[in-house]
Amino acid sequence: MRRFVTDKARNVVNRLASSSHAFPPRAYSPSSLSRFLTSASADLSSVSDSMAGSDYSSAPINIHSINPKVLKCEYAVRGEIVNLAQKLQEELHSNPGSHPFDEILYCNIGNPQSLGQQPITFFREVLSLCDHPSILDKSETQGLFSADSIERAFQILDQIPGRATGAYSHSQGIKGLRDTIASGIEVRDGFPANPNDLFLTDGASPAVHMMMQLLISSESDGILCPIPQYPLYSASIALHGGTLVPYYLDEASGWGLEVSELKKQLETSRAKGINVRALVVINPGNPTGQVLAEANQREIVDFCKKEGLVLLADEVYQENVYVPDKQFHSFKKVARSMGYGEKDISLVSFQSVSKGFYGECGKRGGYMEVTGFSPEIREQIYKVASVNLCSNISGQILASLVMSPPKVGDESYDSFCAEKDAILSSLARRAKTLEEAFNSMEGVSCNRAEGAMYLFPQIRLPEKAIKAAEAAKTAPDAFYARCLLNATGIVVVPGSGFGQVSGTWHFRCTILPQEDKIPDVVARLTVFHQRFMDQYRD
Amino acid sequence: MRRFVTDKARNVVNRLASSSHAFPPRAYSPSSLSRFLTSASADLSSVSDSMAGSDYSSAPINIHSINPKVLKCEYAVRGEIVNLAQKLQEELHSNPGSHPFDEILYCNIGNPQSLGQQPITFFREVLSLCDHPSILDKSETQGLFSADSIERAFQILDQIPGRATGAYSHSQGIKGLRDTIASGIEVRDGFPANPNDLFLTDGASPAVHMMMQLLISSESDGILCPIPQYPLYSASIALHGGTLVPYYLDEASGWGLEVSELKKQLETSRAKGINVRALVVINPGNPTGQVLAEANQREIVDFCKKEGLVLLADEVYQENVYVPDKQFHSFKKVARSMGYGEKDISLVSFQSVSKGFYGECGKRGGYMEVTGFSPEIREQIYKVASVNLCSNISGQILASLVMSPPKVGDESYDSFCAEKDAILSSLARRAKTLEEAFNSMEGVSCNRAEGAMYLFPQIRLPEKAIKAAEAAKTAPDAFYARCLLNATGIVVVPGSGFGQVSGTWHFRCTILPQEDKIPDVVARLTVFHQRFMDQYRD
Repeated sequence: MRRFVTDKARNVVNRLASSSHAFPPRAYSPSSLSRFLTSASADLSSVSDSMAGSDYSSAPINIHSINPKVLKCEYAVRGEIVNLAQKLQEELHSNPGSHPFDEILYCNIGNPQSLGQQPITFFREVLSLCDHPSILDKSETQGLFSADSIERAFQILDQIPGRATGAYSHSQGIKGLRDTIASGIEVRDGFPANPNDLFLTDGASPAVHMMMQLLISSESDGILCPIPQYPLYSASIALHGGTLVPYYLDEASGWGLEVSELKKQLETSRAKGINVRALVVINPGNPTGQVLAEANQREIVDFCKKEGLVLLADEVYQENVYVPDKQFHSFKKVARSMGYGEKDISLVSFQSVSKGFYGECGKRGGYMEVTGFSPEIREQIYKVASVNLCSNISGQILASLVMSPPKVGDESYDSFCAEKDAILSSLARRAKTLEEAFNSMEGVSCNRAEGAMYLFPQIRLPEKAIKAAEAAKTAPDAFYARCLLNATGIVVVPGSGFGQVSGTWHFRCTILPQEDKIPDVVARLTVFHQRFMDQYRD
Repeated sequence: MRRFVTDKARNVVNRLASSSHAFPPRAYSPSSLSRFLTSASADLSSVSDSMAGSDYSSAPINIHSINPKVLKCEYAVRGEIVNLAQKLQEELHSNPGSHPFDEILYCNIGNPQSLGQQPITFFREVLSLCDHPSILDKSETQGLFSADSIERAFQILDQIPGRATGAYSHSQGIKGLRDTIASGIEVRDGFPANPNDLFLTDGASPAVHMMMQLLISSESDGILCPIPQYPLYSASIALHGGTLVPYYLDEASGWGLEVSELKKQLETSRAKGINVRALVVINPGNPTGQVLAEANQREIVDFCKKEGLVLLADEVYQENVYVPDKQFHSFKKVARSMGYGEKDISLVSFQSVSKGFYGECGKRGGYMEVTGFSPEIREQIYKVASVNLCSNISGQILASLVMSPPKVGDESYDSFCAEKDAILSSLARRAKTLEEAFNSMEGVSCNRAEGAMYLFPQIRLPEKAIKAAEAAKTAPDAFYARCLLNATGIVVVPGSGFGQVSGTWHFRCTILPQEDKIPDVVARLTVFHQRFMDQYRD
């Protein structure tokens, strides 16, 4: 299949290269390309014009009087490029043919179902039944739903006090669902998990915010974060007024995480008077896609223990591993296997229903497993969770389902496995095809995606392109991403949104377009890139 | 019906008073009552013992090193009394008969479905179909679901890009659903509403947090809040490090909101150097239940305009009005009817699917309508919304449904109206019965619940009870609430969690126990109160 996709991509590239009217008709003519390549500055100025807001001069608040932490916060995954994409999409809708592509392809965000991935049937059956339990006893229901989904819905309803799926739950989430999740964690890790350690949240993001809120009192509190990092971390640290202490992943060794680098950055920050409170590790990596080796994880655990850091483990891609030589190990399993118990290390693991093979982003389900904190700290976390009452119950149910899928002998087991395997094996093929495509482009190098949902290629931009970006008052990688969007409809996120070694330029591209679209994506990327390089060659 | 309930309650009270073995058997014997009345101090000390956490002495964070704003935050609705309730519930479960009641009755929180209120059928049908759209075309579905729910599910799916109910949406919520909600607001108000002004959120709470985050930079930023207030406001202001500027509602005039009081408090705060940014108004009131008169709302709008304050209008109880002489008017409608347009007043209206007649707390749906802010401020709100990606899609769908229920001619219309009317008229009766019961108790006075879901009676406690509370190191109203819980299983929230005029004592009690339980609730409250007063009479 991989060969098929690559061959198909090559054919499309050849067609495009040989005909200026090929797919889509006006896509790659030199004039339209150069227009798009230079449109960045115009677009930027029009944005800043529309933001002047002079008519609101008597409004009680203005940009100078709001919380400066909000101003400082940036979130590139939904930043300026995405705003431009939405504008182009509206233009395509109101004026078809107005751009050299038929659709916007959102490769900026890990949002599988927005690109056509279908939900896992069993999960949706159970959610549907829990939403409308009065059909559970009806005979027609047997014909519409699998037997084990009906049974599971009954089980879940029995776990919910009063079977009230529309009631606020316990602030940490429904106890019975936490029991199920804890069992799932035990099966995964081979070590005990306590349902009272689980806080169910609307996706992983609110959980991260809760921990940042707890740990950060002022800008003298630092959080060690990987660079590149998922911008939730930089945004959350900014919103809570702390200091992001960067540690750099080593691109040359496949985005390796070196403890010597952690030590160096920790010491540098401490010398500046920063009180470093926690270490964020994203495994599998986002945007970098690397999967940590267990030996590496042990070093990280020891480092946190020795240095008195809370370990914040973003493990939302735990089911997204694509290479046979790597395997996911939770940090809790690693710590427990080293003999560290509850009181030896403070560890928070984040999990989400948005990722994995299920990709249920819109359901906003997730949890954090909080271990190694004293009861009085736990009480504070509980209080913060309580202020928002609880996470949504459908998300809670789904979190229990992903940690306790159908088992051998259940009616849905075979179809569930088939759906899961089809998605994961396809993602693995797509990752490989895109990685190879990037590596075949002039001046581009791309580490393999061992896991997660992204590639993070480095582009060595010609000096002339960097000067054009300067003239357009934008970062070179943002300039590249903007040109790519304007020419192809493909949305990627500039590396500057994640952080990168100074003077290097990257972008993050998801591996999520459906497999039959990958050849087209590869073709568009390849042709665009070549023309961009040709135009700006020094 | 009202007379029936009151009579039934009176009968139960009489039975209880005449027999020490009546309902439940061991409920009100003098020895068990006095044991519970004095158990507060013991419970408190056991809590503080278990919180010592000395085994975590080497943990990287402790109670002195976390964010002090988190420590300062309080959220009484899920505070100490609720923790005790959960403990008692577990004891009842593991050791039935261990307390003088069979169940815990949670009157601490506006959580209708937890007390047996059934969801609105049409809403759940649509949610169920949207969760599992592949059944939409199946013939069995016609037999299970109403025709208009199937039609509505198709409409909603068409509004969702790619029909992907499992995808992250636009950060403000799905555009088509915002269109529906905006139309619903227009029908409600008779003034235009813009879908781009709507931010869909996981219940109203995250929306309030977003605005507080925007408005508060430091403790010199003040937010005018009613006293008593819903503790989400005090908690959110504390978490964001601002200053709550109290204004007192006038209990004597039915919790009246006097603009002269607003002015006085504003001036006092300004004199202290507080930069007051916004005014919070909760209408219908929580915990106070009053519904503002339109003339009063006009004064409030003018006050905000004149003083340069953002008006934060908590309108989540807009469908909960129980008295014929009052009506809900949105602040936006009031402002527009005064001739104030988009640029004349900065107004945020909060709405939720958790309240109304639907009471879908667990779905975590809601929105804020943001008007009168410059584009550059709107961009900042959008950015903060983006950091959490989007609210859950089921909650978004439900928000569109509550603002666009079945219409005349739809198959579900009659049953929908019947369900709605049954819930609202029953709530009105329950409010009246409980209000009368409180007013018949010694030393208790209770304003009527014109709207919302609560009563907030004042209790004039004997000096001896206040001394007993002091001895138990707790506030007198918390002492009363704790004794009530221990003796009856009824959970209420002490007035100190909402704020009250110094030296007065209140508690908040929801009107949500199902109607057939109200006589029992009244009986328990009445007997407990009389015995409490007898024990502590000066």
